[in-house]
Amino acid sequence: MDLKNYIREVQDFPKEGIGFKDITTLLNNGEVFKKTIDMCVENVSEFDFDVIVGPEARGFIVAAPMSYALSKSFVPIRKPGKLPSETVSIEYELEYGVDKLEIHKDAIKKGQKVLIADDLLATGGTVNAIVKLIESMGAEVVGMVFIMELSFLNARDLIGDYNIKSLIKY
Amino acid sequence: MDLKNYIREVQDFPKEGIGFKDITTLLNNGEVFKKTIDMCVENVSEFDFDVIVGPEARGFIVAAPMSYALSKSFVPIRKPGKLPSETVSIEYELEYGVDKLEIHKDAIKKGQKVLIADDLLATGGTVNAIVKLIESMGAEVVGMVFIMELSFLNARDLIGDYNIKSLIKY
Repeated sequence: MDLKNYIREVQDFPKEGIGFKDITTLLNNGEVFKKTIDMCVENVSEFDFDVIVGPEARGFIVAAPMSYALSKSFVPIRKPGKLPSETVSIEYELEYGVDKLEIHKDAIKKGQKVLIADDLLATGGTVNAIVKLIESMGAEVVGMVFIMELSFLNARDLIGDYNIKSLIKY
Repeated sequence: MDLKNYIREVQDFPKEGIGFKDITTLLNNGEVFKKTIDMCVENVSEFDFDVIVGPEARGFIVAAPMSYALSKSFVPIRKPGKLPSETVSIEYELEYGVDKLEIHKDAIKKGQKVLIADDLLATGGTVNAIVKLIESMGAEVVGMVFIMELSFLNARDLIGDYNIKSLIKY
């Protein structure tokens, strides 16, 4: 099954000149969505981890079903002000300005092994921030998995020496 | 298994005097999270539906794993400006001000049977808006499922005559 057949490109989103890879058409096909999550699970079968983290909001669509499939802990990473209990946070640079991510301070324990799951690996800015956030808590990032990777943005150079899996490359 | 044992109450969130029901402690227990989704699936086994919709962002945590478990179409409902293709939208009133939700125009077809899944039924304002949005597309809402329901907010009076399931009532 070529997952690319189920992903549509929307021109000029979020701004002119960008061809946005839209996975909602893949999600809309129940069998294909199931197969996609199963492929994510298979891709990380060699990794030993306790926890799956996913960033708000599209990351939840990959990380939560993987957690369900594997009966593993799911830890959401959210935009500022969304998590109710005590958080640790990290700021990271965007093309213009800065963004911030938060995680519950007690969600991941020292020494735990963590998998990161998200829909898209683009520049790698977000996942790079998540790695730093998790490591600042004394936990270990054992790998990461994405449905899509935009190879021409060279995220792997930014992220460095981690186990990175992606189902589809553009 | 009493799911209430895995949900913590965070005082004064999002504002003073509110005791926020925090499901992140439930999500953090892989076995309990799996069981929770399985209970959602069992609760809707009597309903005949083609599509599961879930609202951004916590709704994705319930709707996406249910879609995975059932191999059913998952359709995200999002905040304005997040969906890349053509959308239909609905505005609804909050305690102060208005909010807006969007869905892809081609995500649900006329006559399709839709299940709504979310983590929390509170006042019912959001789910009531989602029902109207789906019905405006010519589709049918066959039921809705929530992990938690705050019964004292009387959402069922607002929503009216629909099949409403919740795993836990407060």
